[in-house]
Amino acid sequence: MSKDFVFSTREKDYSKWYNDIVEKADLAEHSAVRGCMVIKPYGYSIWEKMQAALDKMFKDTGHVNAYFPLFIPKSFFSKEASHVEGFAKECAIVTHYRLKNDEGGKGIVVDPDAALEEELIIRPTSETIIWNTYRGWIQSYRDLPVLVNQWANVVRWEMRTRLFLRTAEFLWQEGHTAHATAEEAVSEAEKMLDVYADFVENWMAVPVLKGVKTPNERFAGAIDTYCIEALMQDGKALQAGTSHFLGQNFAKAFDVKFAAKDGKLDYVWASSWGVSTRLMGALIMAHSDDAGLVLPPKLAPIQVVIVPIYKNEEQLKQISEMVAGIKKSLEAKGITVKYDDRDNIRPGFKFADYEFKGVPLRIAIGGRDMENGTAELARRDTMTKETVKQTDLVEKIEKLLIEIQSNLYTRAINRRKAATHTADTYDDFKKMLDDKGGFIYAHWDGTSETEQKIKEETKATIRCIPLNNKKETAKCIYSGKTSTQRVVFARAY
Amino acid sequence: MSKDFVFSTREKDYSKWYNDIVEKADLAEHSAVRGCMVIKPYGYSIWEKMQAALDKMFKDTGHVNAYFPLFIPKSFFSKEASHVEGFAKECAIVTHYRLKNDEGGKGIVVDPDAALEEELIIRPTSETIIWNTYRGWIQSYRDLPVLVNQWANVVRWEMRTRLFLRTAEFLWQEGHTAHATAEEAVSEAEKMLDVYADFVENWMAVPVLKGVKTPNERFAGAIDTYCIEALMQDGKALQAGTSHFLGQNFAKAFDVKFAAKDGKLDYVWASSWGVSTRLMGALIMAHSDDAGLVLPPKLAPIQVVIVPIYKNEEQLKQISEMVAGIKKSLEAKGITVKYDDRDNIRPGFKFADYEFKGVPLRIAIGGRDMENGTAELARRDTMTKETVKQTDLVEKIEKLLIEIQSNLYTRAINRRKAATHTADTYDDFKKMLDDKGGFIYAHWDGTSETEQKIKEETKATIRCIPLNNKKETAKCIYSGKTSTQRVVFARAY
Repeated sequence: MSKDFVFSTREKDYSKWYNDIVEKADLAEHSAVRGCMVIKPYGYSIWEKMQAALDKMFKDTGHVNAYFPLFIPKSFFSKEASHVEGFAKECAIVTHYRLKNDEGGKGIVVDPDAALEEELIIRPTSETIIWNTYRGWIQSYRDLPVLVNQWANVVRWEMRTRLFLRTAEFLWQEGHTAHATAEEAVSEAEKMLDVYADFVENWMAVPVLKGVKTPNERFAGAIDTYCIEALMQDGKALQAGTSHFLGQNFAKAFDVKFAAKDGKLDYVWASSWGVSTRLMGALIMAHSDDAGLVLPPKLAPIQVVIVPIYKNEEQLKQISEMVAGIKKSLEAKGITVKYDDRDNIRPGFKFADYEFKGVPLRIAIGGRDMENGTAELARRDTMTKETVKQTDLVEKIEKLLIEIQSNLYTRAINRRKAATHTADTYDDFKKMLDDKGGFIYAHWDGTSETEQKIKEETKATIRCIPLNNKKETAKCIYSGKTSTQRVVFARAY
Repeated sequence: MSKDFVFSTREKDYSKWYNDIVEKADLAEHSAVRGCMVIKPYGYSIWEKMQAALDKMFKDTGHVNAYFPLFIPKSFFSKEASHVEGFAKECAIVTHYRLKNDEGGKGIVVDPDAALEEELIIRPTSETIIWNTYRGWIQSYRDLPVLVNQWANVVRWEMRTRLFLRTAEFLWQEGHTAHATAEEAVSEAEKMLDVYADFVENWMAVPVLKGVKTPNERFAGAIDTYCIEALMQDGKALQAGTSHFLGQNFAKAFDVKFAAKDGKLDYVWASSWGVSTRLMGALIMAHSDDAGLVLPPKLAPIQVVIVPIYKNEEQLKQISEMVAGIKKSLEAKGITVKYDDRDNIRPGFKFADYEFKGVPLRIAIGGRDMENGTAELARRDTMTKETVKQTDLVEKIEKLLIEIQSNLYTRAINRRKAATHTADTYDDFKKMLDDKGGFIYAHWDGTSETEQKIKEETKATIRCIPLNNKKETAKCIYSGKTSTQRVVFARAY
């Protein structure tokens, strides 16, 4: 293993610690194209597991997949007023459709004769092109609901990028649904928020707050934006997923009407919802430690690694035969096992490598183990080791994988508890933010002005108004005006 | 069902017949963006089945997935001389990264201050960006082979587009592998050709010819291009997949070297291979008939549809209870079943709809069937019906699905046999082409000039030189010069 294992700790440089894990654990790297990443095979295999779990959840809730064009005609963006107003203008714009050989012989140049009549935008999100398509799909209430999801790449020309967390191109899924009533569309948006929360908590082992965004933080074109917010180890929040109730805004912009049962024509009601490769960032930051990546078993590409420790070929052969049986038994239970018997790498290096890559369980088997019928079993989450009888291994591993999954969740929820505070004055609020960050519950007067001022002065934003929030009358920490509930502030990714 | 069921036949207008099936069976439609298609949920679910089967085959042969940027810096294209020379220049080109509100208040315009320093090309294929990345991944023979695949969208600015067969944007997978020796890279290209042939024959039920392309038809930058060629019902060939031995061309262009066991530095050897949503076009054209789409059971999103025929609620309830049991038994065997008990659509319309959508088996159950303990079972491939005992249904269906899969393959291979000819003179050759098309085995002198002339005069191209081709000395049908083997000509999609 030629890899450089000097890497940062959370304490020393949190941001470098994150980058070191992403790059040195072979999850992703920067590409030659500004702001775009290469997702490496190990990182991509985690994303594939996320995709598979989410896709099944979408299908189990009645959704189907489809695919819409990468390109959106520029004019489409102008059709929904608040969408174009609120949405970032940083997009990749296609203006030409042909290259040609440079007449001076210097490679290739853009052919000036091949300018598009109308420029095309690489989709930053697909509401416009999809609602333009739905016009042809929906005539009557019988055509509703339309429950479609798309797995796709999207591009937002971010100026400051970070692997997985903020990249110009990223992978995501976007659901776009059409309904006969506002109630159905709202309940779809709420249902998908629940699906996201279920996935992030039960697969990623990351606890989330469910809430509604303030008007300031809403998706451009939405009536309401629901979100799940997670807390990272440095006390910063990360928005892990959003779902939007879009009202009839896009239906009106793209003239999508349906005949109701009584024959009356009305505009269709909409929701949209999405999660992206940003979840990879949340996964990495939520659990990892100063020894590298820590993965929850449900999303680990390798759940168990087995390393033989041997003095000669004869011993290796013995160990390998024994391991073959265990591996087979584990695989029969759906557990992913890697047996690493490479002979050019020392066991200690293998240990460090799999530790760094977050493999939940490691088994080491040496000569003495073979004599005693034992194996050494090491947990990545607690970094503890124990000696286990070979005959007990399979059962033990099955239990431990469940235990690790649940332990990671508990650890994350305890961290969040420790980093969740209540502030009753603006001074306390600012002190808490600078001290250790975290979620801060505080009273707010409900105005965008106050929200904006607090953001300017402290860089904290209102992450959400929690669902089913407790109502209590008090004073806004900033303006002193009347407030009816606490909202959740944090600095965020 | 409001759908218009007037559609073309193969005889009347083959091209319209194809489009009618694609559009009216809800597979795909044209989008608002020139040359780009929307893949509709029913079509996409077939593509998902293709993806799942192929992805498993790739992984079973040792490959892993990764993801590389959508954008390729323009200068990358100039680095591999024959790649830039041979590759079509029709690409989507990103020149700007920001929009702005029009000062005149007329929507949005491209911000002229946001021109990119170097234009970015939307990937038409990813050899260049991937080999630029591999330079960082490969130092030693221990890093080889690299066996990576990517599922992605690509764009080629085609002027004349047809749904699935030729679209500006399409979905595909592209494998890009790196090896220590030429032999390994060649054997990888051959192995993946076998994987493709296996998939197309055993899943799509479409027989293929395996062969090598002539230099004229090679991928730009390849030393050798292997291909599988299928024959459609109108006698035209369709290239269903290709794999390329790229030599050291891309490694040299992007300076990717490795230290061999003996310490010597050498350029890395490469292969690449891909299939795309074009396979959907092949699938549709290979089996469908004048009653619509015909799908092989292994790729059918719905394998069995059950339609109740009832006079009253009581009868429906009885039928539904019986069907629930059968559905459960079928699903336990991994068979996909849809029970269509919609009460606003007449059975006859349902029959026509599922027939048109290619559902392999249809069961109808009415009042008399309930009395007799029977059901009517209809096959989509042969359009035959039979009465079956309800107690025999599950076993019968399981057998029939296998039989239909194999029958479609046999039918396709018989069609191909009937449309495969041998021409010994250029006159015969031309007559065969105009008469019924098909694959024509003919002697060719091996020169690009002759190949080009024949193409100009007849629109037929050399589809491939079959693998393990029989050697026989004779005269080229065009030039009369010596030829050592027959090659396969056809007009093609």
